[in-house]
Amino acid sequence: MSRKLVVAAAQLGPVNLGDDRASVVARLVAMLQESAARGARFVAFPELAFTTFFPRWWFDNEDEVNDRFFERSMPSPVTQPLFDEAQRLGVGFYIGYGELAAGESGSPNHRFNTAILVGPDGSIVGKYRKVHLPGHADHKPEAAFQHLEKKYFEVGDLGFPTYRYGAGGVDLIAGMLICNDRRWPEGFRVLGLQGAEMVVLGFNTPTENLHYPEPPALRVHHHLIMAQSMAYQNSIWLIETAKAGVEDGFRMFGHSVIVAPTGEIVAQTVSEDDEVIVATADLDLSDDLRRTMFNLAAHRRPEHYGLLVERVGVEVTPAN
Amino acid sequence: MSRKLVVAAAQLGPVNLGDDRASVVARLVAMLQESAARGARFVAFPELAFTTFFPRWWFDNEDEVNDRFFERSMPSPVTQPLFDEAQRLGVGFYIGYGELAAGESGSPNHRFNTAILVGPDGSIVGKYRKVHLPGHADHKPEAAFQHLEKKYFEVGDLGFPTYRYGAGGVDLIAGMLICNDRRWPEGFRVLGLQGAEMVVLGFNTPTENLHYPEPPALRVHHHLIMAQSMAYQNSIWLIETAKAGVEDGFRMFGHSVIVAPTGEIVAQTVSEDDEVIVATADLDLSDDLRRTMFNLAAHRRPEHYGLLVERVGVEVTPAN
Repeated sequence: MSRKLVVAAAQLGPVNLGDDRASVVARLVAMLQESAARGARFVAFPELAFTTFFPRWWFDNEDEVNDRFFERSMPSPVTQPLFDEAQRLGVGFYIGYGELAAGESGSPNHRFNTAILVGPDGSIVGKYRKVHLPGHADHKPEAAFQHLEKKYFEVGDLGFPTYRYGAGGVDLIAGMLICNDRRWPEGFRVLGLQGAEMVVLGFNTPTENLHYPEPPALRVHHHLIMAQSMAYQNSIWLIETAKAGVEDGFRMFGHSVIVAPTGEIVAQTVSEDDEVIVATADLDLSDDLRRTMFNLAAHRRPEHYGLLVERVGVEVTPAN
Repeated sequence: MSRKLVVAAAQLGPVNLGDDRASVVARLVAMLQESAARGARFVAFPELAFTTFFPRWWFDNEDEVNDRFFERSMPSPVTQPLFDEAQRLGVGFYIGYGELAAGESGSPNHRFNTAILVGPDGSIVGKYRKVHLPGHADHKPEAAFQHLEKKYFEVGDLGFPTYRYGAGGVDLIAGMLICNDRRWPEGFRVLGLQGAEMVVLGFNTPTENLHYPEPPALRVHHHLIMAQSMAYQNSIWLIETAKAGVEDGFRMFGHSVIVAPTGEIVAQTVSEDDEVIVATADLDLSDDLRRTMFNLAAHRRPEHYGLLVERVGVEVTPAN
């Protein structure tokens, strides 16, 4: 039986501070419809899709942050139309949002950078909370912008779960990651060891490097080599979807991609605006690779990998 | 103080079954001299550099294999001229060879796919025994060729050590890998966690896939995306040197590369024959990267990486 799933990456152009949720949901619904019309039965939306990429600003008032940028429930009245349209079309999706999870009675709320996997019936199949939070927690008033993910989010507490997922008549094992996770082979491999066949990832990546001057083209190069190598070395289909363009004066690059387990980019956006790309993902394409080169059981040697979990950062410990 | 080391990759063309060690050593010495003349103070030679890539054949007689393809000591009378010339020129090097390590009295010998790091004084600084052995241990008479590394070698028993290394007035932390290791992020990261700044790797890679039809250009694509992503995600200089060309009718691709910590290929061979490429490796180029994006201590989350060492191969274990 063929296991071909037509998938889409639905890149969002800018979402400015002044844009309300309803207008964003309308754009997402329009791209869901376009994806379905082009045959897709699964659509990957970006990270923090309903709002601007707010970690670029320092806000003193945490209540304001919670109210403006986080979701207390998903779906909510304003996001419900996206779920309804998915159910109507029979199209599943991935989307990222700021999650405000109520703490125990009297304890503070928990905030996560979260993604969910929604089935073609509009129900939530699984959740992931971002583990590799980039940036910093302190205010850097001298910088052109901030990257305050370490201030606004807690480290994800769900690990790297995989989920049985069905769409378009195909059953598969899916995993989720978010943005900066795409640079960390550890997370991908934990998904691969659980049998992930498709990994979905949304991102927001500034065109300029906050920390030091770096050519913007080099940043896109990094994005592309990482996407290709992660897909190849884990024999997975990988969908990476950007929120792109100039949000209130701050530019983010696009280059949303769909990558085959061969490490080949099979679809890529060419704009920094709302844009849908579609590809046919043959879930069996990686069978040969999984049987030979990346037969993990035959070739991995965890007895020599101890430092991966015993050590967090670099310690200069030469043998001589 | 500047920490710039001029490095070379000295790619070998074919070494056929009929070529004796002395003729190969003469070619290596010539490339060592060419590298030195072009300013290099460190030269990376290939994997199993002194012989043909013998795991492509099944041999019944193990004593014959040991005598023809393995080294009982390093240096040996026939390989000594390479070490002598390195000392004379003040140029360090990496080279791979089949290592026959004597067992305990009465026990069998141990065979490893080994690489050594040799200082500019001609002395051996460190050793690595290949961990990720590709291929198979059984005879596949129906195949066009064999890939019998799992027959002829034991899995390396030294882990992934790093070494303090000095050449050309620069002190650095170096690691070694061999061939198929370049596809496994685990080994690179174990080196990175110990402070490796430069990783050296020799390889022999067939142009044709033994196991299933695969476009040769795709195999080179895999080689290049992996080299770039491994260098970038570990903030290392990476030198990967091929033995290339047609050995007794079996072709191997070249594409030896020197890759900067930015993930950019700064030098690449264009032949499948003896060929030297040279680049200036600024060991401080990765300082910004190590301080920000790949500050491992700030961003890694080993509490979520347990499966990397608890599980060898894929087990389909979805959360739902």
